[in-house]
Amino acid sequence: MSKLKNVLTEDIVLPKGFKACGIAAGLKKKNRKDLALIYSEAPAVMAGTFTTNQVKAATVKLCRKRIKTQSGRAIVINSGNANACTGAAGMLDAERMAQITAEGLGVKENSVFVCSTGRIGVRLPMDVIEKGIRTAVPRVSREGGTDAAEAIMTTDTKIKHCTVRFQVDGKPAVLAAMAKGAGMIEPNMATMLAFLMTDVAIEQDSLQECLSGAVEQSFNRITVDGDRSTNDTVLFMANGQVGNKPLRRSHSDWEAFTHAVHAVTMNLALKMVADGEGATKLVTIKLQGARNSTDADLAARAVANSLLVKTSWAGDYPNWGRIMDALGYSKARVDEERVDIHYDDLPAALNGLAAPTPLEDLKRIQRQKAFTISINLHLGAGEAVVYSCDCTEEYVRINM
Amino acid sequence: MSKLKNVLTEDIVLPKGFKACGIAAGLKKKNRKDLALIYSEAPAVMAGTFTTNQVKAATVKLCRKRIKTQSGRAIVINSGNANACTGAAGMLDAERMAQITAEGLGVKENSVFVCSTGRIGVRLPMDVIEKGIRTAVPRVSREGGTDAAEAIMTTDTKIKHCTVRFQVDGKPAVLAAMAKGAGMIEPNMATMLAFLMTDVAIEQDSLQECLSGAVEQSFNRITVDGDRSTNDTVLFMANGQVGNKPLRRSHSDWEAFTHAVHAVTMNLALKMVADGEGATKLVTIKLQGARNSTDADLAARAVANSLLVKTSWAGDYPNWGRIMDALGYSKARVDEERVDIHYDDLPAALNGLAAPTPLEDLKRIQRQKAFTISINLHLGAGEAVVYSCDCTEEYVRINM
Repeated sequence: MSKLKNVLTEDIVLPKGFKACGIAAGLKKKNRKDLALIYSEAPAVMAGTFTTNQVKAATVKLCRKRIKTQSGRAIVINSGNANACTGAAGMLDAERMAQITAEGLGVKENSVFVCSTGRIGVRLPMDVIEKGIRTAVPRVSREGGTDAAEAIMTTDTKIKHCTVRFQVDGKPAVLAAMAKGAGMIEPNMATMLAFLMTDVAIEQDSLQECLSGAVEQSFNRITVDGDRSTNDTVLFMANGQVGNKPLRRSHSDWEAFTHAVHAVTMNLALKMVADGEGATKLVTIKLQGARNSTDADLAARAVANSLLVKTSWAGDYPNWGRIMDALGYSKARVDEERVDIHYDDLPAALNGLAAPTPLEDLKRIQRQKAFTISINLHLGAGEAVVYSCDCTEEYVRINM
Repeated sequence: MSKLKNVLTEDIVLPKGFKACGIAAGLKKKNRKDLALIYSEAPAVMAGTFTTNQVKAATVKLCRKRIKTQSGRAIVINSGNANACTGAAGMLDAERMAQITAEGLGVKENSVFVCSTGRIGVRLPMDVIEKGIRTAVPRVSREGGTDAAEAIMTTDTKIKHCTVRFQVDGKPAVLAAMAKGAGMIEPNMATMLAFLMTDVAIEQDSLQECLSGAVEQSFNRITVDGDRSTNDTVLFMANGQVGNKPLRRSHSDWEAFTHAVHAVTMNLALKMVADGEGATKLVTIKLQGARNSTDADLAARAVANSLLVKTSWAGDYPNWGRIMDALGYSKARVDEERVDIHYDDLPAALNGLAAPTPLEDLKRIQRQKAFTISINLHLGAGEAVVYSCDCTEEYVRINM
């Protein structure tokens, strides 16, 4: 990863053959950008991961249908309305969004993918959408990445994008990505959208395998409020403009590519938690010593999602007792007398009892903008990491 | 139940042979009451239910050990400190509390039950406790029920107690109860304590059966924040001073008694939710039409515990889309297109789509201090009811 850190930049530089734009179509108030378009001049190999919620937005259903069989030319995304719980009419609206985009760009209708984010249960204002797409199409440009990233935001306070440069077959390649997060965020896909673009050539199966692996380690390990949304979508376009020998596991640059993908998804995932609705602190939960990895996951997520633990982080009192409580009601096996809890490198509890660390030292850690809670259950070799944030009054205000 | 409503009063009148008191021992600040004593002049048959958390307070371990085999003479309760995650020393502290109480009252040490509530992970200040118990013992009186109910409060804003009068074998009998709730409240026992006292004679198995059934329908169906505590305890004392033929299922007044117990536990459970930390609204979730009762429970609790649903209740916008979302990620089987959601008697969603009810009418319902969300999944005969409350900025302030 060290080699890659040098080439990850926080801006967004579109890979060869990609254009984008973001405009204010009128779905959101105050003339805020709310419609984004990503376009590839050449057909792109597609991969995607989607919400596990049984209630799925129309756009998720559409993308799932197309992802395996269709090459992609464009993604059209609106914020301000989720097009979820909108039934057959909502499905027609999603298809119509693809159709208008396809007509404007002169590509096949089924090469257009569609994403929506916003309020559930309200039909899209299709006149506004249609006019917006027609406005957006001629505006796609090589410089439009930032505008697109801005247009997919909902309650995000910061634009989230990044770019990694790497080499494939000795040629320079680019991976660029953007995401939105903020609320309804929970491991196993959040109310989040993320779009990855690269100019390398790669086989579809390999692209999907690489994406799924990276999502599992990043977006599936963050939580803001434990609510999983109806619209979560990650889409990955690879348009082959580098002209490399298509990537697959046996390719000598496979590792460079997968490292780039992992770096990008982790970068965006951590930005999402840090910018969770009302969040002021990024908290990493490192769980070790569980009976097995399933238990490790259950225990880490119980802590990461406990409302009492999360509200305690909003203050400065290191309330490790609430962490013990959450471990105890998790479905993981816990033996109270073996549990160690550290705040960064200082012990708060050892063998389930208060450690002699001065309270002021633990408070200093909890006052930081980012800290790590390490928990060792001392029952086995199971490990898990989950990224969470504090729950503040601002979270409630946003969601009232 | 209608007959019983007439005899349930919101005050606390101790049954024959019971005395109580509540004093300020100095565990809490500002001279607030923090130590309660309940005393029965005659040995009482005991029943109890306890937290399912794997991490259990010392007092829970002590009560569980005694509950089946020992008749009870007293319960001593402190607030301000949970005596949880305190190890072997905490266990000795709990036993010492029983011992001091027993000495003072002149009863057997193992006839005293002990409960604690408050911060986890800190040793009890035993000098304060010991002095407090010695002060409390001579103060128990027939009128001390309200003081005791006040002394067990933590973040509760209101005292919670009630009394039911009924007849057994033609003789007047009394069931009185007190409880504390507020935070760390979730079905399957909350951060809650409840104490029931009656003067009827009853067999131990029958008392336990009756209590377990009533707790399942009341305390196990409320949620404030989804966190289950280390200390949850319900204790029931029956001292037989009515002189009736001992109650059991075959007794002709069995139903009158169980109705009284159900009325009391439901009364206290609803008071707990309505007085949940920061809560301003009591929301009843009625789930019908699930595949089976397990699914009904999972679906109802997913809605009742969703942070996004609960924060939406704090405002007046009837965000049924978030309810759909929570149903969708619950582990219950949900078919989006069959789901109906009503706010009181008005439809918000029918067949998974927005119902034509005017928004203003739904808003009016959500502005009430209490309302019901009825959900029908139309997949089977499974039903469940859960009682929840809104999540406000005040909840966060209390727990920071």
